[in-house]
Amino acid sequence: MSILIVGSLAFDDIETPFGSSLNTLGGSSTYIALSSSYFTDKVQLVGVVGSDFEDKHFQLLHSRNIDTKGIKKVEDGKTFRWAGRYHYDMNTRDTLDTQLNVFADFDPHVPVQYRDAEFVCLGNIDPELQLKVLDQINKPKLVICDTMNFWIEGKPEELKKTLERVDIFIINDSEARILSGDPNLVKSARIIRNMGPKTLIIKKGEHGALLFTDNGIFAAPAFPLESIYDPTGAGDTFAGGFIGHLARCGSINDIEMRRAVLYGSAMASFCVEKFGTEKIAALDMLEIEDRFQSFRELSRIDE
Amino acid sequence: MSILIVGSLAFDDIETPFGSSLNTLGGSSTYIALSSSYFTDKVQLVGVVGSDFEDKHFQLLHSRNIDTKGIKKVEDGKTFRWAGRYHYDMNTRDTLDTQLNVFADFDPHVPVQYRDAEFVCLGNIDPELQLKVLDQINKPKLVICDTMNFWIEGKPEELKKTLERVDIFIINDSEARILSGDPNLVKSARIIRNMGPKTLIIKKGEHGALLFTDNGIFAAPAFPLESIYDPTGAGDTFAGGFIGHLARCGSINDIEMRRAVLYGSAMASFCVEKFGTEKIAALDMLEIEDRFQSFRELSRIDE
Repeated sequence: MSILIVGSLAFDDIETPFGSSLNTLGGSSTYIALSSSYFTDKVQLVGVVGSDFEDKHFQLLHSRNIDTKGIKKVEDGKTFRWAGRYHYDMNTRDTLDTQLNVFADFDPHVPVQYRDAEFVCLGNIDPELQLKVLDQINKPKLVICDTMNFWIEGKPEELKKTLERVDIFIINDSEARILSGDPNLVKSARIIRNMGPKTLIIKKGEHGALLFTDNGIFAAPAFPLESIYDPTGAGDTFAGGFIGHLARCGSINDIEMRRAVLYGSAMASFCVEKFGTEKIAALDMLEIEDRFQSFRELSRIDE
Repeated sequence: MSILIVGSLAFDDIETPFGSSLNTLGGSSTYIALSSSYFTDKVQLVGVVGSDFEDKHFQLLHSRNIDTKGIKKVEDGKTFRWAGRYHYDMNTRDTLDTQLNVFADFDPHVPVQYRDAEFVCLGNIDPELQLKVLDQINKPKLVICDTMNFWIEGKPEELKKTLERVDIFIINDSEARILSGDPNLVKSARIIRNMGPKTLIIKKGEHGALLFTDNGIFAAPAFPLESIYDPTGAGDTFAGGFIGHLARCGSINDIEMRRAVLYGSAMASFCVEKFGTEKIAALDMLEIEDRFQSFRELSRIDE
């Protein structure tokens, strides 16, 4: 089934204790699209780039069968740029520089041929733009939404309007505590689900993720990795694997959502093993299924 | 099968954001013994108390069928006392007061009738005393050991001698990083297992626990609780449930160790729901099996 993805496309300068990567392709929708592209060949991208977004970048997306007709190229502008440095523990980072460039005036236009997309993934952008996207599309089967502290604190009312129209909301633990005003994640989840999304995923970084539905809680472990080179995009890659699995199997029930969390976790575990999108642009389905099985094995308690 | 437990018995003054509890029964061996007592009726305790350890305290232990012949009562001394205050997030605490009292001269003597114990649990005490216990007993089926930063930093050589004779070592994540000198838990686990213990459990508090064996890694979630009143003793209670399940089933293989981690986690999840030992002194096996099933459900991804 088709997945419509809206979010940022960017060039990142990344420093970690293990090295650095300059001018590397990034942005939330890039990671989501690459990650979900292993599960379906109908991935459609809406975004904006500048003249510095070269043919080779489009070719990379096309090599994964990603439809880029929804990407607007502004010839007299520059693509969104972000620079950040990770601390020794890789759990915290400092933003060194943000240049919105063409992203400052992003006004998402969903091409006619995308408007019947069955799965919609709203990457981390201004909640007003997320709403604008929802206003342009026909009845999707499922709407997934990501956000960040910047919008929770800066546009809480707009975010709440978006959340009323979202099926699955993905957020990290500190964001959940801020949005709900409660430090306890179980209570947070109840408060946030009352804002609209029936299903909530709380990501806990190196400690895995929690899925809250009407039927209970699922706790997914994180993969115990020996080498983490770059956490950039891990959350978006998680979202891509999650929606990708649901679009592949077509049915949205608790068991498939639990498996989708593990596929998302598997994709994220690949993402952090190399800089930027390097690893998730060059996987094959066998590796992904192997990693998924390793995740199952991590929690197995039966013979 | 029989379990021999060595550790502290104490009276604690505990403050948390939800209230306080003064002069409450505590100590590592108290929590381990109460927790394991649900799985076998042969729990034997070695420790030391003062004259302030009253009949009612012995009666509480006896009510759980715990053999207290190994507890030495020093009539002209006072029992070990600890006072602590938990922060708002319940993950960090300040020690307000420590009075070793009779525990300062603790020289564990294992009664003759305990020396054939099949399972031995060395609670968090001076590693030299842990070694003295091992020197007094016959060939146990399994030796489990706990420790803390104080001994890792204060008596590293003595601790390493103990670890050479331990089968399963239980430690928390920050302690694992200090002992191994490596921030990555997978690498830490390899370094620590090379010190002797074939099996290592790294506890991650509210994020669950990791079990490392020759055959792989098991990741247990923590139970997503809405109300945590007092984390005191949760780690010892985990150890008690863990060794309790192994002593009950008698076989020590990867599957039973994985289940034992979940039983340990289940017991710890009860422990934090009330102050001190209040909850774990008054459970029944039905509740425990229900909580174990809830833990299974947390990780289930099959129909």
